[in-house]
Amino acid sequence: MRTYLDCLPCFVRQTLEAVRFVTDDEAVHAEVLREILRAAGEMDLHMAPPAMGQHIHRLIRQVTGNADPYREVKQRFNRLALDLYPDLARRVAAADDPLETALRLAIAGNIIDFGVSASVDEQAVAETMERALRDPLVGSVETLRQAAIEADDVLYLADNAGEIVFDRVLIETLDQTLDADRLAVGVKSEPVINDATAEDAEAAGLAGRWEILENGSDAPGTLLETCSPAFRDRFAAADLVIAKGQGNYETLSEAPRPVFFVLMAKCPVIAGHLGCEVGSLIVRQGAGT
Amino acid sequence: MRTYLDCLPCFVRQTLEAVRFVTDDEAVHAEVLREILRAAGEMDLHMAPPAMGQHIHRLIRQVTGNADPYREVKQRFNRLALDLYPDLARRVAAADDPLETALRLAIAGNIIDFGVSASVDEQAVAETMERALRDPLVGSVETLRQAAIEADDVLYLADNAGEIVFDRVLIETLDQTLDADRLAVGVKSEPVINDATAEDAEAAGLAGRWEILENGSDAPGTLLETCSPAFRDRFAAADLVIAKGQGNYETLSEAPRPVFFVLMAKCPVIAGHLGCEVGSLIVRQGAGT
Repeated sequence: MRTYLDCLPCFVRQTLEAVRFVTDDEAVHAEVLREILRAAGEMDLHMAPPAMGQHIHRLIRQVTGNADPYREVKQRFNRLALDLYPDLARRVAAADDPLETALRLAIAGNIIDFGVSASVDEQAVAETMERALRDPLVGSVETLRQAAIEADDVLYLADNAGEIVFDRVLIETLDQTLDADRLAVGVKSEPVINDATAEDAEAAGLAGRWEILENGSDAPGTLLETCSPAFRDRFAAADLVIAKGQGNYETLSEAPRPVFFVLMAKCPVIAGHLGCEVGSLIVRQGAGT
Repeated sequence: MRTYLDCLPCFVRQTLEAVRFVTDDEAVHAEVLREILRAAGEMDLHMAPPAMGQHIHRLIRQVTGNADPYREVKQRFNRLALDLYPDLARRVAAADDPLETALRLAIAGNIIDFGVSASVDEQAVAETMERALRDPLVGSVETLRQAAIEADDVLYLADNAGEIVFDRVLIETLDQTLDADRLAVGVKSEPVINDATAEDAEAAGLAGRWEILENGSDAPGTLLETCSPAFRDRFAAADLVIAKGQGNYETLSEAPRPVFFVLMAKCPVIAGHLGCEVGSLIVRQGAGT
């Protein structure tokens, strides 16, 4: 997905919100904001929006000297989600269609996205869970189920910390369905916003059970050109990619590979691109599937 | 009032909204947005926010070749307000305190501000009128009444087209109270957004009854350094200035003159500067009063 003009004011707003979240130093707020205004004015709109997210958050880390400003928030939401885990697993086990319920809960976990808003809290997570179990699912669970049954090499691209525990429930459910030779969970190599890294995959209880595959990148999405050759090879080899969250949709929507996108459409530009309402629960086959 | 960092994302958002309001040409949208991102990145934050509004709307007029893109909307809201005028005048005449009611209605008219939002409509005006008659007024009507009684040379700085008909009701009410030798109504010399010009003062029925004083400027506020020497002289000589709307507050809040600000606080930055809630109805003495 390219960058739309509507993304540009949003980048500027997000920058101010993010830099204020990371530091109280107003001189740093101004420095970062001015640089992003400049960069947004020159941005190549053919690039996916996470290219700017990568620039914004590299700059914040560089100017503040804080290599992982969201570390505390990531740990907090990992703990919150782990506390919820027994309830999530119970709901899936008791469901008429465990895969659909696991998908719904994984989409609910997508609310834990500090790229969209720095004001996510426990109540938002609880409310989103209830809504995600109730609202219509846009897309086809059956198509994903069939693709999962037929796949031999599955790559699950995680999105954010905390959310990755919700993903674990979906991965466990998929693992009972599918007969794949291998399933890897892709994570970011370097911290960016609250995106999940190998540390979060470990905290979520995924490490040791499935391969954790670092993608070589610090973009909040999967900008393949910034990923390692090893990751790109695995991405190209997988016969099913499940790509979680907005950043992965933005960066992989036109990828010529069998990608299923699982996300909540949290911004009007993405909702417009998907042809749905803001807030919709999405299970969508990519163009290359 | 200086420009705050929060104003910068808002300038960018307003630019996109304004240029889309003026033309459907997406190349123009991109050109104007990129230039404003650049300019916002370099802005001197000691300047009042309307300095950027002036730049944004000069640029839109220049790039589109449309010298007065809001002309139709200004005429529409002048007509709407003139239709309301008999009702406004009746309400003031029937009020226990005509000056307070006229102030409340003039503040209601301040909702007709296409600088803040391009989606004002008839219903918003009607709802705002009812709210403005009911909500608490922040500030002192008595202080303004006393200043008006004592003033000999009054300058009323109008804000927007349409709104200027609401101002007419306040000016008529003031004129019954005060014993001033002269009362002039200040308007913009050149079109900018939907700000009132001499043409709108005429449409509102002010011309011929009071002096209409063009300020020499196309800034959406009163940036004295961009006003004519004649206007600046009158501003300096007036012993009471009534400055209407946000743009005039932003540009004159620190003026060393007896200025009363009459406005609705429509943005969080201005509400913060005034120490009130967004939406508050304000009658406020300036620092130099």
